Amino acid sequence: MNYFSSDFKLGILGGGQLGKMLLAETRKFDIQTYVLDPSDEAPCQFGATKFFKGSLMDYDTVYQFGKAVDVLTIEIENVNLDALDALEAEGKKVYPSPKTLRMIQNKGRQKDFYAENNIPTSFHIRFADLTGLKNALDKNEVTFPFVWKCAEFGYDGNGVKIVRSAQDLTDLPEVECIAEQMVPFKNELAVIVARNVSGEIKTYPVVEMEFHPEANQVEYVICPARIDDKVADKARNVALKVSEAYNHIGLLAVEMFQTEDDQILVNEVAPRPHNSGHYSIEASYTSQFEQHIRSILDLPLGNTDSKVAGIMVNLVGAEGFSGPVVYENIEKIMAIDGVTPHIYGKRETRPFRKMGHVTIVNENMAEARKIAEEVKNNIRVISVQ
Amino acid sequence: MNYFSSDFKLGILGGGQLGKMLLAETRKFDIQTYVLDPSDEAPCQFGATKFFKGSLMDYDTVYQFGKAVDVLTIEIENVNLDALDALEAEGKKVYPSPKTLRMIQNKGRQKDFYAENNIPTSFHIRFADLTGLKNALDKNEVTFPFVWKCAEFGYDGNGVKIVRSAQDLTDLPEVECIAEQMVPFKNELAVIVARNVSGEIKTYPVVEMEFHPEANQVEYVICPARIDDKVADKARNVALKVSEAYNHIGLLAVEMFQTEDDQILVNEVAPRPHNSGHYSIEASYTSQFEQHIRSILDLPLGNTDSKVAGIMVNLVGAEGFSGPVVYENIEKIMAIDGVTPHIYGKRETRPFRKMGHVTIVNENMAEARKIAEEVKNNIRVISVQ
Repeated sequence: MNYFSSDFKLGILGGGQLGKMLLAETRKFDIQTYVLDPSDEAPCQFGATKFFKGSLMDYDTVYQFGKAVDVLTIEIENVNLDALDALEAEGKKVYPSPKTLRMIQNKGRQKDFYAENNIPTSFHIRFADLTGLKNALDKNEVTFPFVWKCAEFGYDGNGVKIVRSAQDLTDLPEVECIAEQMVPFKNELAVIVARNVSGEIKTYPVVEMEFHPEANQVEYVICPARIDDKVADKARNVALKVSEAYNHIGLLAVEMFQTEDDQILVNEVAPRPHNSGHYSIEASYTSQFEQHIRSILDLPLGNTDSKVAGIMVNLVGAEGFSGPVVYENIEKIMAIDGVTPHIYGKRETRPFRKMGHVTIVNENMAEARKIAEEVKNNIRVISVQ
Repeated sequence: MNYFSSDFKLGILGGGQLGKMLLAETRKFDIQTYVLDPSDEAPCQFGATKFFKGSLMDYDTVYQFGKAVDVLTIEIENVNLDALDALEAEGKKVYPSPKTLRMIQNKGRQKDFYAENNIPTSFHIRFADLTGLKNALDKNEVTFPFVWKCAEFGYDGNGVKIVRSAQDLTDLPEVECIAEQMVPFKNELAVIVARNVSGEIKTYPVVEMEFHPEANQVEYVICPARIDDKVADKARNVALKVSEAYNHIGLLAVEMFQTEDDQILVNEVAPRPHNSGHYSIEASYTSQFEQHIRSILDLPLGNTDSKVAGIMVNLVGAEGFSGPVVYENIEKIMAIDGVTPHIYGKRETRPFRKMGHVTIVNENMAEARKIAEEVKNNIRVISVQ
């Protein structure tokens, strides 16, 4: 198959920041790429060969879009899977496959899958709705504290809540959900696994999410994780096992907990490029976005090693600001060696909206960590006054 | 000035591969970018906020394009300078300035400038046309062998010829030209200098052009050059002196000869991102394209150091092939660690047409050099049979 400067067409469902960073790679390789997204202000409106505005959840829209391309992939999980089934049945290449997406899209089914495949994960119970969960609490089948997760359509902390008392239940929506055992952990880790169509498989180094000591929010994604080599090996092996169990093609980001006694428990997965791999654009021999393209087009996988230490800081909208965005002090952080801002292209900021990220690379991890703090303390995503 | 996700508009004159690689950076920063190019199949037709088809040499076209943007830059020197003069006179920011471009555009004037500014360069004589040169030969004011260069519109070896006898003159066009003393040299080197509007200045490491021993064509651009530190320092200082003499803003690629006795002689300059800096995308902390954007927008300059050794191999159309392009063995070279192809997006190949380049990065220069040879021996730019 000739992908380069040819008539071949790759389709991407979703036109957000992940799609935008994928387009940087398809442009580099001159691979024609069509993108479908419901918003005509999507970050992917530029850089695609063709941009289509349309619903990702509408059967006909997704089906017709898929018919126009040779290989179809996603940058967001919430797409019409029935349309993907139909396309796949007709012989269209869809990576990841709708079968895998179905297993992942529902967090209850995802957790069941780990249990069935002997993949270490925390204990969980599934409920068809909140009422079911409340009944289980009444019968002491579930006890406080636990982690509530909505089964579908949650993302980035949305749809996840630590429930310590009946009081915490009052705001929750009446949707399918799971109750998960709360596991005390030392570290939250992630490993990205790449697997191409032919089955070649590679893992990226383990990254570590460093949390703000008070706010309990991820502040930094750090590569490599500052953990023992043995624990890192264990985490990479668990991630490999998850990828093999899913028979997954493309990238699979596996989020894990390192418990107090150095067990590795799988938290959840994302079958696509992931926030925990953004550092790879500057730090790795092969960025996660290039690797995703290589995987789904059955090209040889690239080297997943890092050239230098990498730390990623998310740029999210500051509280109290809504409107046309301004990146306060961006020139100040750009004056520091090894600092690269990525601006996703959303014109309007809102509190906590993901607007971009900043990568810090350095030969020395301690130095990178110091600079990351300087970046974090200076840049602010606010709006025009 | 707020450039990021704002109404600010950067204009680029020229929509070829250099423009395409600049757009990768303006997309990363979400800076609105307009591009003007005469071809509607230009590599920049994708990725720009707006792409305009039109002549770069036509006064009105360039003038009107310039009026629509806030800052104007170039990715090719051959543009209508009168239009840029008019725009600059009206207060438009044009970097590099038309004054600098005028001094560089004509190679005779460029050489005069070095002589006037005590910048080491080989001896030269200017001629209004070929007849003038022939008369000088008759009078022994010029003697064989010498290097003939057409004064304007030459590029990539086009417009340069080593003249060893009267016979070699017969094919030359009747245009303004210079005759340059032939200087035996050990190495052809290049240094890219970045200078922002405020005058902050940084140089990239010295790169070395390695020639094919028989074909006398550049095979590899190697960073860092495998030369003595003292010579490298001298080359960086000469390049700085050239940049300061021109009072240049943006990138200035300075091509130089290292003579047998380790003198550094300036050959010529390019006031923009340059083939000799393509390695920087994968090897440097800051790619030359990002650096050009930083320079002309008066942002702080990024770190010009390398993370790893880098070697660049040009992908030019193979002799004997014209038509829809195929990159033979591209999958084979992509299987090697640290190998990244860049495909410029030209659908049709022709003999010697610049179609792309491949970057090889490695911690170890000797290993990188070995891989570069493997890449060179495998990949071929041919056409569909």
